[in-house]
Amino acid sequence: MPVITLTTDFGLSDHFVGTMKGVIAGIAPKSTVIDICHLVTPHNIAEGAFVLSQAYRYFPKGTIHVAVVDPGVGTQRRPILAQANGQYFIGPDNGIFSFLEKVKVRAIENTRYFLPAQSSTFHGRDIFAPSAAHLAAGQKPKSFGPLINDPVTIDLFPKQLTRKKWTGLVLKVDHFGNLITNLPATLGRVKQLTIADRTLTETAATYQQMSDTTPTLIAGSSGYFEVSVRQGSAQAALGCGAGTPLELTLW
Amino acid sequence: MPVITLTTDFGLSDHFVGTMKGVIAGIAPKSTVIDICHLVTPHNIAEGAFVLSQAYRYFPKGTIHVAVVDPGVGTQRRPILAQANGQYFIGPDNGIFSFLEKVKVRAIENTRYFLPAQSSTFHGRDIFAPSAAHLAAGQKPKSFGPLINDPVTIDLFPKQLTRKKWTGLVLKVDHFGNLITNLPATLGRVKQLTIADRTLTETAATYQQMSDTTPTLIAGSSGYFEVSVRQGSAQAALGCGAGTPLELTLW
Amino acid sequence: MPVITLTTDFGLSDHFVGTMKGVIAGIAPKSTVIDICHLVTPHNIAEGAFVLSQAYRYFPKGTIHVAVVDPGVGTQRRPILAQANGQYFIGPDNGIFSFLEKVKVRAIENTRYFLPAQSSTFHGRDIFAPSAAHLAAGQKPKSFGPLINDPVTIDLFPKQLTRKKWTGLVLKVDHFGNLITNLPATLGRVKQLTIADRTLTETAATYQQMSDTTPTLIAGSSGYFEVSVRQGSAQAALGCGAGTPLELTLW
Repeated sequence: MPVITLTTDFGLSDHFVGTMKGVIAGIAPKSTVIDICHLVTPHNIAEGAFVLSQAYRYFPKGTIHVAVVDPGVGTQRRPILAQANGQYFIGPDNGIFSFLEKVKVRAIENTRYFLPAQSSTFHGRDIFAPSAAHLAAGQKPKSFGPLINDPVTIDLFPKQLTRKKWTGLVLKVDHFGNLITNLPATLGRVKQLTIADRTLTETAATYQQMSDTTPTLIAGSSGYFEVSVRQGSAQAALGCGAGTPLELTLW
Repeated sequence: MPVITLTTDFGLSDHFVGTMKGVIAGIAPKSTVIDICHLVTPHNIAEGAFVLSQAYRYFPKGTIHVAVVDPGVGTQRRPILAQANGQYFIGPDNGIFSFLEKVKVRAIENTRYFLPAQSSTFHGRDIFAPSAAHLAAGQKPKSFGPLINDPVTIDLFPKQLTRKKWTGLVLKVDHFGNLITNLPATLGRVKQLTIADRTLTETAATYQQMSDTTPTLIAGSSGYFEVSVRQGSAQAALGCGAGTPLELTLW
Repeated sequence: MPVITLTTDFGLSDHFVGTMKGVIAGIAPKSTVIDICHLVTPHNIAEGAFVLSQAYRYFPKGTIHVAVVDPGVGTQRRPILAQANGQYFIGPDNGIFSFLEKVKVRAIENTRYFLPAQSSTFHGRDIFAPSAAHLAAGQKPKSFGPLINDPVTIDLFPKQLTRKKWTGLVLKVDHFGNLITNLPATLGRVKQLTIADRTLTETAATYQQMSDTTPTLIAGSSGYFEVSVRQGSAQAALGCGAGTPLELTLW
């Protein structure tokens, strides 16, 4: 039975995530449920997209990824089932799966896969968890609803200004205070990064190579450039966070 | 093998919860353990009861729910095994299962189900986890101890003042800052709610229907009235939290 | 298939831990993964060692414990596989397994057990998780690399000053604000404990025996002396935390 992953902004201080797992245990008791993250900043769809985009490739084929960052819960926004990379993605149609390439998307319309009573505020429990569980239990994707060609997308990518200049932004601050940018580490060799009125020119290949307090650019495990302070917090050192604009200059 | 759930105030920054799962893995290796919540406010039995009351109905029959919010750990308070709703509930006899109806309660007295050495401060590890695991592994409820008819209960319910007026309180502030009350959404159509010297008259069916900053009443996924601010925090807007008294007036 | 546990300082707000579990699910899909703790203070190897030392004995024989508190990630520090207590321990060679007795340690050199591409900042995903999964899937310990006799160790133990006096320190502040010391509760009967310019003389066997606000010594479930305040926080009452030095006087 496949793996089901959960990515939400539900936090860990309520019954929300546990209840979703209870619903899944009732429908697909042999599935394995894995938490990716439940501390996405509330209502921040782009951050949810980033977190899942970092993790999904490391899961086996057939994995069902449920992502619920859903400020539009209770409105007419569609629940969707996306297929890409040999995996499945279930969540609201609000751009949270925008990172997927070569994706096939269905609107989930088959209410037989929902809980009998649906609240207007907790579709994670009432719609997304049971849909994922029914898919894990063997229901066919096409039984969920029709293909659609107009899923909502959001723009997660940097812009190229000149041959040597790009603008981007901080996608996320991680637990260690590293600033993860949306600038792929493959863009080229860095001359400088302008961020929060500071111009950074230090680069390093490992944390140990960094001098003690200077914010330094490193090719992160994310595949993006990250700004780090050795055994410290770049967020604190630079006084900035998610959404901060950046300008990158290459040699 | 049945599902075992865990609800505690142990937090996530220690070895406590993981150790309970290690004990279970040794006794009932094929059981599935699901966390409901470990961030119940320390020693707040009523909040623990609320969290579990929200989740348990969504789990399959036969599920074993372990709840440990236990300020009396190490004293003579009894460990109990309750049966209701086709499920099992294991924890201290301090009212944490007060929400259960038609319940049958046993004192757990069979020390063969405990770890050989019991600390006086961590019965989650030494008594409750191994008891749950032995139950999951097939031991009969009656082998745990005798039925009792005097379990401790706590009062979680609102009071009716007149035909149109109820008093209640905020049960819990959720991760989004929503104030969850103990006033069932089925009481009637709301005229106003008095809370923290404010009188609220706005109601909505979804978050999107709310105006941007006005605290608004909504029938929550909990089945209770909740006070919310659209994409904001009602807790911050009203400056109040769990335990705040309320007065509800119906039309 | 054996249990794999995870102890890290990766936090819960990123994709880090979920991604490690995805890697394991791809290699050893039938293993059971249990979180011990992911909120070890960043880069605090001694705290990570303490957390795992508290939990590991409660897991079944054959369990594979992965611990990643790894400020030296990306440098030449070795990945190791330790064997003790009928269990396995995988992590960086930085002293995080110093609490183990009668231990046999191998350097992990077999890169066939790593992910094909290794970042210089996330060996939890690229080296430690896949190594643990291959071990769970049946690969032999000796296939990971050669035995070594110079693993890094750190000193976690108190010092004896006189027959009746010991010095130690606070190992960790737990979720409830209890100060867990490195002084074994078996040292003897306590006369007094000096901590943060205060001299404590109160002892108790349970939290309920404590007076309401006096910081009190108790033999904790950890096996060490702990300083607690009944239904309060000793950390707040004494204004001190991990690393604070202590002097214990016995009768």
